[in-house]
Amino acid sequence: MSQLSTQPYKGTRDFYPVDMRVRNWMFSRVRRTLKAYGYEEYDGPMLEPFELYAAKTSEEIVNEQLYWLVDRGERKMAVRPEMTPTLARMVAQKQNELPRPIRWFSIPNLWRYERPQRGRLREHWQLNVDVFGGDALAEDLEICQVIVALMEGFGAVSGFEVRLNHRGVTDYVFRELLKLTDAQIPVIGRLLDAAAKMGMDAFGENLAKEGMSASQIELLKSLLQKDAADRLRKQLGDNPHFAHLARLLQRLDELGIGPLFRYDPSIMRGFMYYTGMVLEVYDLHPDNNRALFGGGRYDNLVGMFGGKPLPGVGFGMGDVTLRNFLEINKLLPNLSAPNGLYVAHLDEPQLLDAQKIALQLRKLFANASIEVPVLTALSPDKPKKIFATAEKLGARTVVFVGGDDVKAGRYPMKDMVTGEQTTGVPGELAIKYMTVAMSAAAGAIHGP
Amino acid sequence: MSQLSTQPYKGTRDFYPVDMRVRNWMFSRVRRTLKAYGYEEYDGPMLEPFELYAAKTSEEIVNEQLYWLVDRGERKMAVRPEMTPTLARMVAQKQNELPRPIRWFSIPNLWRYERPQRGRLREHWQLNVDVFGGDALAEDLEICQVIVALMEGFGAVSGFEVRLNHRGVTDYVFRELLKLTDAQIPVIGRLLDAAAKMGMDAFGENLAKEGMSASQIELLKSLLQKDAADRLRKQLGDNPHFAHLARLLQRLDELGIGPLFRYDPSIMRGFMYYTGMVLEVYDLHPDNNRALFGGGRYDNLVGMFGGKPLPGVGFGMGDVTLRNFLEINKLLPNLSAPNGLYVAHLDEPQLLDAQKIALQLRKLFANASIEVPVLTALSPDKPKKIFATAEKLGARTVVFVGGDDVKAGRYPMKDMVTGEQTTGVPGELAIKYMTVAMSAAAGAIHGP
Repeated sequence: MSQLSTQPYKGTRDFYPVDMRVRNWMFSRVRRTLKAYGYEEYDGPMLEPFELYAAKTSEEIVNEQLYWLVDRGERKMAVRPEMTPTLARMVAQKQNELPRPIRWFSIPNLWRYERPQRGRLREHWQLNVDVFGGDALAEDLEICQVIVALMEGFGAVSGFEVRLNHRGVTDYVFRELLKLTDAQIPVIGRLLDAAAKMGMDAFGENLAKEGMSASQIELLKSLLQKDAADRLRKQLGDNPHFAHLARLLQRLDELGIGPLFRYDPSIMRGFMYYTGMVLEVYDLHPDNNRALFGGGRYDNLVGMFGGKPLPGVGFGMGDVTLRNFLEINKLLPNLSAPNGLYVAHLDEPQLLDAQKIALQLRKLFANASIEVPVLTALSPDKPKKIFATAEKLGARTVVFVGGDDVKAGRYPMKDMVTGEQTTGVPGELAIKYMTVAMSAAAGAIHGP
Repeated sequence: MSQLSTQPYKGTRDFYPVDMRVRNWMFSRVRRTLKAYGYEEYDGPMLEPFELYAAKTSEEIVNEQLYWLVDRGERKMAVRPEMTPTLARMVAQKQNELPRPIRWFSIPNLWRYERPQRGRLREHWQLNVDVFGGDALAEDLEICQVIVALMEGFGAVSGFEVRLNHRGVTDYVFRELLKLTDAQIPVIGRLLDAAAKMGMDAFGENLAKEGMSASQIELLKSLLQKDAADRLRKQLGDNPHFAHLARLLQRLDELGIGPLFRYDPSIMRGFMYYTGMVLEVYDLHPDNNRALFGGGRYDNLVGMFGGKPLPGVGFGMGDVTLRNFLEINKLLPNLSAPNGLYVAHLDEPQLLDAQKIALQLRKLFANASIEVPVLTALSPDKPKKIFATAEKLGARTVVFVGGDDVKAGRYPMKDMVTGEQTTGVPGELAIKYMTVAMSAAAGAIHGP
């Protein structure tokens, strides 16, 4: 047999601790924010029946990107490529029991077969946030607020923009202004969605291929221009869907977050199940000027299970895009700063003394409700080597256990960041550590 | 097309919020404990090359229980049935860079095709804890301590027992005392592992089928008796592996946790890669007298990738077994106790006022570093209906927004647990809530 590779499967990632810390930090922020808004976490199985996606997910995903297998009972199962069908299934299952409004979120890992050369990943984690069972305006308003709160939770109070549109408005533009046929609408919709990526010339050529006239093409292209919203406003008159968007924008203004939102008639969103408001969040940083995530309103996602229609609105946010945004905007804290204590023994017989001291320190920190890693050495070493190991392990403070110190019960300790040294019983060492580490944390916040 | 089922795939679970809270609570306790011991979290992809399991995982898993698929590039991929091969791959990949000791944990979801009638699940979450790169005795001692600390973190200071054995001792018993052949050893080992489940009579019959004599069978059966350890001690003499176990037990005694451990010569553990200490944690509760989880020492898990041998020790703990243990021993807190505020408006025009009040409350709680859900109503309602909704949503306190209150900027609030009512500006309401909820929390801890 040839030797096994140590590399992860193409398009997937190994999360070593240095990367896992980032993922955990991002999603712990997310959980804190969503909890403050009363959202509750759910999860479902990684494998779902293939038909669940065949019904509603886009054809591209089902035909080209789905991972699937046939189980030993001859059932065709798919590895989930998105969370919304699972959400719909779960809501439909308990539709009559679940108290409303339903405010749910989940952070599943999702799989799609992407060609590696595109640089897109085959496995990623995606935050899904959804709300069901309230008035449409109140729900749309809340989802917009939640997006801003999530960004604030990451320290981003500007540098991004939420672009809003409404499928009803797009439908009005397609049918009443452009006079497209039923057959043209989904095709033109997909082209509009991809217009920014393909460029204006290619966009025009593709539209012409679909049988659109020069004046139709001009109108459609104008939707992508900066002043499109203002010019379109006049033509939309008293369209009720546009009025919904206008009311929403006004209320966002009154809540003080209006400047982060704007109406953009070119926003489409890929999924065909959207029926109302759609949104895309853009990074405004010059090095990362791209869509970060998006979502929209759907009127009857649970319909395919035969229940009563249940409208809702939600969005999905991927971990790769989010991490890029945080890095480019310098919003990721240093999660690898030296932290915790390394309790090391100089000779083998002191292993047990070191373990006892470590146990005492852990109890003292737990009683103070402070999370401090207390690592012990798993083999005896000379002081110089102990310092080197402690540094590699990311500890900031070393406690030495050896010789006469054990008899006296007082141990030398050195903080490797400040250079401070002290000697004491474990209780004194714990207090000293807390004082030093906390003033360091305060310095990181308030200092120069 | 027939209507889609709303049920999850057989042998898997939907985690509605009520169950997700339990899963999150269990693993947040786990993370807190492991962090105190300096363990760092990692993760890997859900799909791994099939060969990764073909090499080391038990034949039963690979041939009968593995979920696998062939991807669009003709690669045979498996849905991970256990985490250890991924761990070995990741450690081998960076074997020369990773600072030692390596203390890692992960909480992956794992898949095995189990027959549903056995009541076992096809998808479960499993905590994996491993340590590499230290002295064997220090590592074994630490893993034993970590197990006790995890149980303590759940509030379990007794009611369980850790049964220790050593593959070297078992090997000595098999070869020197029982005189088994090389071919017999793995077969007899598997029978011994399954002996408790199959019962003494069937065990004896199966041993006879494998060609064992009556005296061999008697000796092997005696290993399963209560006093087996004491009787065997004399026969083990100066066996170095037994000496290792004895030293380990002595140090556990000196750390004050000795009574939770005992030597049990019948402990085998399924995986063939174990080479040293093996352990199983048993629930001693009369209604759940069974193995909770286990693990052991392996000498060269990274060997199949061609690197230098790297010994380590670890264990895995599944979420289903853990939850059963916590429920039967009444260690799960009430995670659905009423909590948080429900800010509801009486008439549509006050939606925005309710949103503003909720925003202020969230900021006040965030500034006080207290996690309190603040839910808003997503449609106007009458007071009676508002109370009913708040209760269903699990909120403990209702803030009413309507009529003259909005003009005055002071809002009535009612705590549904104590019945207390108050009126005030949002700052006063936040303080009142914190006072009431905190004294309730204190009462839950200290009160009758």
